[in-house]
Amino acid sequence: MGRAERIPNPGDYFLREIAGESIIIARGDSGRVEAFYNVCRHRGTRLCSAEEGSFAGRIQCPYHGWTYGLDGRLLGAPHMDAAGFQRLDYPLHKLHTDLWEGHIFVNARAHPETLGGQLADLPERFAPWRMAELRMHKRIPYDVRANWKLIVANYNECLHCPVLHPALNRLTDYLGADNRAPQPTYLGGAMGFREPAETMSMDGKRRRDYLPGLSAKERNEVLYYAIYPNLLLSLHPDYMLVHTLWPRAVDRTEIVCEWHFHPAELAKPDFVADDAIEFWDVTNREDWRIVELSQAGIQSRAYTPGPYSAREELLAAFDQVVIQRNANAEPNAG
Amino acid sequence: MGRAERIPNPGDYFLREIAGESIIIARGDSGRVEAFYNVCRHRGTRLCSAEEGSFAGRIQCPYHGWTYGLDGRLLGAPHMDAAGFQRLDYPLHKLHTDLWEGHIFVNARAHPETLGGQLADLPERFAPWRMAELRMHKRIPYDVRANWKLIVANYNECLHCPVLHPALNRLTDYLGADNRAPQPTYLGGAMGFREPAETMSMDGKRRRDYLPGLSAKERNEVLYYAIYPNLLLSLHPDYMLVHTLWPRAVDRTEIVCEWHFHPAELAKPDFVADDAIEFWDVTNREDWRIVELSQAGIQSRAYTPGPYSAREELLAAFDQVVIQRNANAEPNAG
Amino acid sequence: MGRAERIPNPGDYFLREIAGESIIIARGDSGRVEAFYNVCRHRGTRLCSAEEGSFAGRIQCPYHGWTYGLDGRLLGAPHMDAAGFQRLDYPLHKLHTDLWEGHIFVNARAHPETLGGQLADLPERFAPWRMAELRMHKRIPYDVRANWKLIVANYNECLHCPVLHPALNRLTDYLGADNRAPQPTYLGGAMGFREPAETMSMDGKRRRDYLPGLSAKERNEVLYYAIYPNLLLSLHPDYMLVHTLWPRAVDRTEIVCEWHFHPAELAKPDFVADDAIEFWDVTNREDWRIVELSQAGIQSRAYTPGPYSAREELLAAFDQVVIQRNANAEPNAG
Repeated sequence: MGRAERIPNPGDYFLREIAGESIIIARGDSGRVEAFYNVCRHRGTRLCSAEEGSFAGRIQCPYHGWTYGLDGRLLGAPHMDAAGFQRLDYPLHKLHTDLWEGHIFVNARAHPETLGGQLADLPERFAPWRMAELRMHKRIPYDVRANWKLIVANYNECLHCPVLHPALNRLTDYLGADNRAPQPTYLGGAMGFREPAETMSMDGKRRRDYLPGLSAKERNEVLYYAIYPNLLLSLHPDYMLVHTLWPRAVDRTEIVCEWHFHPAELAKPDFVADDAIEFWDVTNREDWRIVELSQAGIQSRAYTPGPYSAREELLAAFDQVVIQRNANAEPNAG
Repeated sequence: MGRAERIPNPGDYFLREIAGESIIIARGDSGRVEAFYNVCRHRGTRLCSAEEGSFAGRIQCPYHGWTYGLDGRLLGAPHMDAAGFQRLDYPLHKLHTDLWEGHIFVNARAHPETLGGQLADLPERFAPWRMAELRMHKRIPYDVRANWKLIVANYNECLHCPVLHPALNRLTDYLGADNRAPQPTYLGGAMGFREPAETMSMDGKRRRDYLPGLSAKERNEVLYYAIYPNLLLSLHPDYMLVHTLWPRAVDRTEIVCEWHFHPAELAKPDFVADDAIEFWDVTNREDWRIVELSQAGIQSRAYTPGPYSAREELLAAFDQVVIQRNANAEPNAG
Repeated sequence: MGRAERIPNPGDYFLREIAGESIIIARGDSGRVEAFYNVCRHRGTRLCSAEEGSFAGRIQCPYHGWTYGLDGRLLGAPHMDAAGFQRLDYPLHKLHTDLWEGHIFVNARAHPETLGGQLADLPERFAPWRMAELRMHKRIPYDVRANWKLIVANYNECLHCPVLHPALNRLTDYLGADNRAPQPTYLGGAMGFREPAETMSMDGKRRRDYLPGLSAKERNEVLYYAIYPNLLLSLHPDYMLVHTLWPRAVDRTEIVCEWHFHPAELAKPDFVADDAIEFWDVTNREDWRIVELSQAGIQSRAYTPGPYSAREELLAAFDQVVIQRNANAEPNAG
């Protein structure tokens, strides 16, 4: 859903729109991150409209003034003197939340799986990057005319890199991807640099210190992980790149791309990030363009899925996950 | 549908769009107000496109020149020499019309209920305001992203006034509404002024004479009546406010708001109306904004209708009317 | 689909969008005109996006670089080393193409009817105009808010001409249409000029030599033929007018109108065409406006089809063809 650093103090919040729902992500009095449907229990009115902000200790509906605590409890409901009315019965509808290294996760199910089960071995594996310490420096949103699954598929193979990404292809060997075996809840792998490149930037030069705590091996590669369903995590030797995917229609996805750096680097007077930002912005746009062409093409009545090469194994695994989830899904989950 | 004063002379017309239909409201030769579907009987072409205007004694289709009288009879159909063709068989499709104090009503049913039955005791009750004499001074259209029923509900309670309408709340006591028992075809009630307010205006001052014929009691209150389905009639001591609602989609309604005054006042050189116009325009926009937030919220899968307080009795009655009508309705009538 | 002169050399292509499909019309190495679905056999990506252009000997997908010959054969598929992968199994999806006097026709069926059967006696009948020799001088696209069938119907009768087309009505007698008996695959007829008009132009003057080879009779009339489903062919004494209809939605059609002249005329230093272009552009816009009004009207629930006069016989025949085809059609063919 985003990063916890965005709401440092009790009452801070931001909104997320997902599957037609507006969700309030807020920091509670106890410091806990909470998630509520943006729906008053009286007449259903949206409680807040501003993209982000801060509640003054409570959440008040702008229609008739029903008032909720930052934990969602109904505190006041003017004139609700009806026999049998109990404020306890009308808290905000809450969603389950959890945190991992500053990444906020929400689960809308009544009986959600644990985040630990979803992440499996990733917390241990990604510990050296100390993601919780990193801070966002730049955010770019994109509006892409393609289904979110095409974007996940695009992220998980570099077979297209020599044709589509000349800049990227100078820094990394598209045949050198070290993919891990596909997992039920994520896909990922590592790619090393072509010498003398030291990070992903327009010229391959690294203008920031290595993130503290990385081994020699970790300084020489980028980890690319797609954590289902909508988080793409790209760990560089000197920064973290985060894409989140927000499906808006069967053929449209909003994508938010963020660049995160170490606070010690951000504090330096000569800190620069343009090299990394421009590099991924260019590459992003190349990718969004091609997935839009794929989206247009697969809508043809002539389209039938083609064969995958051995180097597209992650995509084949992703297909299976989608097929499996759709088979288990409630209607309209697609 | 609007006011008869808009089409004073035979041939005058205006168009209304309702439920995807274009309806011609026209003054006939006899002075009668007529309503026709804007559909030629030959090939279905729309007969006129301009929002309002005047027919020169007949209505001619711009495609092949079929010509109709102002009463809808087919007068001419070039080259329709087919055996058995009878002009009498092809009049314009007419809708039933009726008038009440200058308000035009249309009923699309083949066997419509009488307007008298619909209005019940309202003609007698509203006679003192002599609405037929009043003339429109100002019209403001609004495009609102909400279902029309949320707008009716919003009109029928003032529990939201202290939170939403600071200007209105200074002039009137939101707890002082004198609601009548809900009726099958309308809802309504009266609200008195907080002293020293004398009408609904930015500062509560009344800058026009009282409408002639009002009693002392009627000079001290505003009547708010929602006449199903789409007429909101607000009778002030010195003017009439009329809202008509035009559903455009399940979540969109066009609203036309008109301010009507007595001709004797309109004729005065120092006539002013800005105080009343600005007041309701501000209040309208506050209401449209909040019903749009309600519309957004009730589309959530988390939404369930909340409880009504004793002061929301008219809304509970309106809900029952809607449930009842939907139960009786043809499919797609929603 | 268009004219073969638009793609004179091998590799030249243009795109057509029809029924949601993007079709590549290309000139192959052998000089043959080919048509392909714009869909890569690997992941479905659109192969090209530019409206027209020229392939450098082969068609390469911009995603992973699969490469096809101008005849559609798959020539290269990087890294497709999967056991059993055969390039022969993955040619572009091809559509059947045929030519008549420079007009390109495409048939999407697996077992298409012959173009000869579709055209019947038209090739012999239209031979004197030597259409293959003509060259396009002007193209105007229109976006019309009406179903394509209303446009075909409008083209096939001139009963509306005195009401709708004052300029056209000065040049030709709307009662003088010499319609042929309706055919299963086309409708058509001829209309003579009102003296002293010699062609369809703003003033009826003919500013170009007659097309070579026309008889005295052919010099004195215009042939108007609607060849199903989407070609409207209007043969004048001194030029050819071509409309092609491209349905975009049930109530929207893109129309491309082209003016074609004899090369000997185009080569003259004093060649002018504005008279013919302006005349049909004005007439086109009158027609598009009225079919939009028809489209709006027939969507009314009050609409029922009206009677046809004896002078609307071609339309009655077209109705029967549509009814017949819909009865035989696959679902969604409407």
